[in-house]
Amino acid sequence: MQATHDILSDFILPPSITAPDGNFFTFTGMRVVVGSNPPPKFKVTKATKAEFPASDGQSVSYAVLQFPSGGMNPLHTHPHFAELLFLVQGSLEVGEVDTTGKLYAQTLQKEDMFLFPKGLVHYQYNSNAQYPAMALSAFGSASAGTVSIPTTLFTGGTSDDVLAKSLKTDVATIQKLKAGLAPPKP
Amino acid sequence: MQATHDILSDFILPPSITAPDGNFFTFTGMRVVVGSNPPPKFKVTKATKAEFPASDGQSVSYAVLQFPSGGMNPLHTHPHFAELLFLVQGSLEVGEVDTTGKLYAQTLQKEDMFLFPKGLVHYQYNSNAQYPAMALSAFGSASAGTVSIPTTLFTGGTSDDVLAKSLKTDVATIQKLKAGLAPPKP
Amino acid sequence: MQATHDILSDFILPPSITAPDGNFFTFTGMRVVVGSNPPPKFKVTKATKAEFPASDGQSVSYAVLQFPSGGMNPLHTHPHFAELLFLVQGSLEVGEVDTTGKLYAQTLQKEDMFLFPKGLVHYQYNSNAQYPAMALSAFGSASAGTVSIPTTLFTGGTSDDVLAKSLKTDVATIQKLKAGLAPPKP
Amino acid sequence: MQATHDILSDFILPPSITAPDGNFFTFTGMRVVVGSNPPPKFKVTKATKAEFPASDGQSVSYAVLQFPSGGMNPLHTHPHFAELLFLVQGSLEVGEVDTTGKLYAQTLQKEDMFLFPKGLVHYQYNSNAQYPAMALSAFGSASAGTVSIPTTLFTGGTSDDVLAKSLKTDVATIQKLKAGLAPPKP
Amino acid sequence: MQATHDILSDFILPPSITAPDGNFFTFTGMRVVVGSNPPPKFKVTKATKAEFPASDGQSVSYAVLQFPSGGMNPLHTHPHFAELLFLVQGSLEVGEVDTTGKLYAQTLQKEDMFLFPKGLVHYQYNSNAQYPAMALSAFGSASAGTVSIPTTLFTGGTSDDVLAKSLKTDVATIQKLKAGLAPPKP
Amino acid sequence: MQATHDILSDFILPPSITAPDGNFFTFTGMRVVVGSNPPPKFKVTKATKAEFPASDGQSVSYAVLQFPSGGMNPLHTHPHFAELLFLVQGSLEVGEVDTTGKLYAQTLQKEDMFLFPKGLVHYQYNSNAQYPAMALSAFGSASAGTVSIPTTLFTGGTSDDVLAKSLKTDVATIQKLKAGLAPPKP
Repeated sequence: MQATHDILSDFILPPSITAPDGNFFTFTGMRVVVGSNPPPKFKVTKATKAEFPASDGQSVSYAVLQFPSGGMNPLHTHPHFAELLFLVQGSLEVGEVDTTGKLYAQTLQKEDMFLFPKGLVHYQYNSNAQYPAMALSAFGSASAGTVSIPTTLFTGGTSDDVLAKSLKTDVATIQKLKAGLAPPKP
Repeated sequence: MQATHDILSDFILPPSITAPDGNFFTFTGMRVVVGSNPPPKFKVTKATKAEFPASDGQSVSYAVLQFPSGGMNPLHTHPHFAELLFLVQGSLEVGEVDTTGKLYAQTLQKEDMFLFPKGLVHYQYNSNAQYPAMALSAFGSASAGTVSIPTTLFTGGTSDDVLAKSLKTDVATIQKLKAGLAPPKP
Repeated sequence: MQATHDILSDFILPPSITAPDGNFFTFTGMRVVVGSNPPPKFKVTKATKAEFPASDGQSVSYAVLQFPSGGMNPLHTHPHFAELLFLVQGSLEVGEVDTTGKLYAQTLQKEDMFLFPKGLVHYQYNSNAQYPAMALSAFGSASAGTVSIPTTLFTGGTSDDVLAKSLKTDVATIQKLKAGLAPPKP
Repeated sequence: MQATHDILSDFILPPSITAPDGNFFTFTGMRVVVGSNPPPKFKVTKATKAEFPASDGQSVSYAVLQFPSGGMNPLHTHPHFAELLFLVQGSLEVGEVDTTGKLYAQTLQKEDMFLFPKGLVHYQYNSNAQYPAMALSAFGSASAGTVSIPTTLFTGGTSDDVLAKSLKTDVATIQKLKAGLAPPKP
Repeated sequence: MQATHDILSDFILPPSITAPDGNFFTFTGMRVVVGSNPPPKFKVTKATKAEFPASDGQSVSYAVLQFPSGGMNPLHTHPHFAELLFLVQGSLEVGEVDTTGKLYAQTLQKEDMFLFPKGLVHYQYNSNAQYPAMALSAFGSASAGTVSIPTTLFTGGTSDDVLAKSLKTDVATIQKLKAGLAPPKP
Repeated sequence: MQATHDILSDFILPPSITAPDGNFFTFTGMRVVVGSNPPPKFKVTKATKAEFPASDGQSVSYAVLQFPSGGMNPLHTHPHFAELLFLVQGSLEVGEVDTTGKLYAQTLQKEDMFLFPKGLVHYQYNSNAQYPAMALSAFGSASAGTVSIPTTLFTGGTSDDVLAKSLKTDVATIQKLKAGLAPPKP
């Protein structure tokens, strides 16, 4: 637990660092990501407090999102924090649903930005059959947190009965959904 | 838009009230709710900034939750704010899923409290075949906001294709789910 | 010392708990309170960070207030935080005084709510000669803190002279007040 | 209602000022106060948002406190905000009571500082029979708010009965206290 | 003036927009920037509350920084907010000075990130004689604010005498500095 | 790192103090400062969290500023926090520059207050050839932090080249400025 603002020092050092230099404030982990071939499926690489301790208490962090053709960042929400996406490469379909249930969808071109407001459920999808897409997303927090809707719903142990009643469907449909989201067996 | 804390006056008056008295701080809207027969399906009655303007800027509000036999408050989340439920009557199955996908479930007895942490997806379900249940839920905000997962997913206009890919299922299953959640036709 | 909002984890575990389950989020301490006979004098039972560690960082907590006939929760204030009272049983006289010295008083019926704004001095009093009263109060903090006016004034060691001058009365009256509030001698 | 921190502009202009200059940031109202003869009784002169609009949104303000011989700033509390007193002239007895009822008292010399923590009840008293005292108090808010205990208790309209029960005394004592605090009749 | 966090609605609409759609959350202003030829000198293009109203209350914004060969973003600070720079193109020398006066400098490669902590003075400089550089910077605020040191010092009207004493130099040197920073005459 | 507001205890004790009394809340370090002869050059004496632990979490602190004839507190900024200066003795020239580069300057008389807004660069200068000046400054934080512009610019190790480009001057001028600010050699 850490409050996200109003630090009283210039920055926060992790216990392992006593003599910081410029490297402490530098994150090089994106070098291999950005230049790499498109991953086989959607992949997120984060530079948050966990990977980049200098961001602790500074209320800002990044993630690089890579989408192969047809790749999707499925429905999810970041409690507390907004996401501001900048599309570096390709095109991207994005959407968010407000608390009244209304969808706001858009097809982004390269260099467009899209704002996902605090706490709203959203997705990003590269529907292009040919080209990959890559985006950089900024968050107003060193650690934004993510609630994945499919994982939360169907792999977290919530009973078939609760899910069937929640979604007003039958248990067989829930079991089919759970099977689809289960990790592949070896 | 209103900041939720650190008001500089004792309280905030809506423009329509210039000479507040004790009635301004009193909410009587729960009288008819608590004593009433169980509703046919799950029903929530709120005392938030919208219904009870005195709560504006005071960072606290209430909701009364009524569950007939088999009634469910389906999966949802309150961005930013926690919910502290007090079970007034009956028994209740509750569950919440953390951001790693782990489920925390519990069967509550009358007078138990259960805490739903900030931003996590959760549900409440009266599985008792015979008796209704009623709960009072407090929020650390005058207006906590609710993201309903079924509404967000299946009635908000998100395309079948995005949903099918998000949930790793087929379009037919999505369409079945949407049909189940659609309001009944006249 | 703990900041009250913007936690960066889903919840905060006390050092003694490493594998939380649903019990961690459940508070059962009110079971014996609510069903019990009315206490001989006003009694408060809290579910705050101290009694219910899951509320840490979640900005919400509860207290159950029990009033026998004639029972009073004497004048007090919660610095920083508002209280939202829900009257579960009986009737209750409540009042609060704003910073201009104006009193807002009300007689509550069962199921009424009353809001005590942040930092204002207030009281609750069951003037009914026959029936007990019980209320549930929510606070927008895991630990709201209470400044009891009688205790602060008359049992805290403030000198008779300071008190007499503060209240523009004589030392004899102060000594009489102190004697009335002193714990009974064995 | 105004949030107390995180303004997004350099400063906040009141509607009446469109072309601020150095005067906008200057408060000259203390010139006549500091050089004046001691007032007949305790007197506070504020430089808060109301008197000094430039402090709006800047989270800091001042008050000058003047104490003639025997002058007292009676028991009071500032909800939300701490007070840091600097004794400019004379000597001063100060005290504060924490939420457990414990008194922290001190006799200050000229140039001493004393911290009154957020929300705690406190007083200041010039017990010196001969010399006046003067202090400067800073608050971490442009508008700290004050709850005067005598005013709140005895001039706000709270009934004799509630007060007698709160203070565990009789109605006659309450009426005597109320009479003592009533403004003198012409 | 607007508080930067804890909005109570999903998002904040400017008065001119009553029926938002996906365009409201989309910012296309960077399309022409990113693909353009390097500007003749350092240039910043912002997507903050002013240019992109959807960011209001969402605590995050972007700026695109373009550096021709030898281009510099001179010493400046963002009060309150940190900056997280992502180098999209070229190489960049960056540095920041903490409140003890210590410099943290680094030469960034393409795809490196560098964190400029809240409130610290910093610069970015493309020392490469041949290639331009471009960076994307994220801020944990919809409107971070910038204090430019050269502008603040030498074009803001501060007297030569104050500046000479502040910098422990002579008035002639100050006048030379002011002349260098003055806008070119037509 | 410590959040600056919303403490959940009455006050924060440092580990070394287990039984606080009135002395804990008293700071006597200004006694020798205020009565002393004017220092040979500008001198600041602080009562912040470091010198006065009771201020921790209370969001307020003081500094005493002493200016001999011609003494200057050179250009600096306090990230996050405003300063409210009260001139105790003498006269003082003060100025601040907003983020558009506009200077707000004023000559203060004894007992005037001047507000330096959050994050803006400012200075204080006793131009009087004969008399010293003394001021008390309050901050809305227990630890406001100071970014000294001369130290940051010219003694922190930033290269001559970066400085020359930042200030649009030549390296010789930078070296002259650095020499002027260097500590005298023994």
